[in-house]
Amino acid sequence: MQKVFAMSRSATFDPSTLKFNEAGLVPAIAQEESTGEVLMMAWMNAEAIQKTLETGRVTYWSRSRQSFWVKGESSGHVQELVDFRVDCDRDCLLVLVRQSGPACHTNRRSCFYTAVRDGEEVELMSPMA
Amino acid sequence: MQKVFAMSRSATFDPSTLKFNEAGLVPAIAQEESTGEVLMMAWMNAEAIQKTLETGRVTYWSRSRQSFWVKGESSGHVQELVDFRVDCDRDCLLVLVRQSGPACHTNRRSCFYTAVRDGEEVELMSPMA
Repeated sequence: MQKVFAMSRSATFDPSTLKFNEAGLVPAIAQEESTGEVLMMAWMNAEAIQKTLETGRVTYWSRSRQSFWVKGESSGHVQELVDFRVDCDRDCLLVLVRQSGPACHTNRRSCFYTAVRDGEEVELMSPMA
Repeated sequence: MQKVFAMSRSATFDPSTLKFNEAGLVPAIAQEESTGEVLMMAWMNAEAIQKTLETGRVTYWSRSRQSFWVKGESSGHVQELVDFRVDCDRDCLLVLVRQSGPACHTNRRSCFYTAVRDGEEVELMSPMA
């Protein structure tokens, strides 16, 4: 992974300063800290962000269930927070994590297991044993 | 970067099979292929996806300008497409790219240059010279 170091300290982080969409959500990209793999993208609201930062367990907002989704709570495939990043427009998050097992509900390491090459869909990963 | 190989070939890719939001857009995460850095997240519509695949130049849909945004067209900070990925739910894209210069409009390599650590915002990168 890239080596990045703190350069300057600014304001106290306030989740309400983020730009949430009309549903009060912001996309959060999860990246495996040790390998750089992009694992998944899901959504957080202000409270999920606070829970994630307070507990160190990455917590999303499930749009389908309309409830908090502590990643891995039922499957055991938790995401331990390593670093929490905000983008320049404050409308997207990047969470660097240590992922236990597969991140994807299909049991694959990453949700991005399908490539498009020469107009064809190609499967890049199989489910983990 | 992770080493991934094609495992199986399935259907011809049809952008209309993706799950676009109510505005006809899908989020696209750009990752530098050589280093694994997550550079930015922006949005694509079906036509931007087609342009990206046809030209090999990553092309987004600018929500603020309501027009195609060929990344780097004015700045020269282009994204050459290396691989195009679709997630399990078909509602998010990952483009692996070769990024020329900074990806961020602030002239930083990545848009995710702010970390939240111990409740404080910390700047991790300075603008490129």
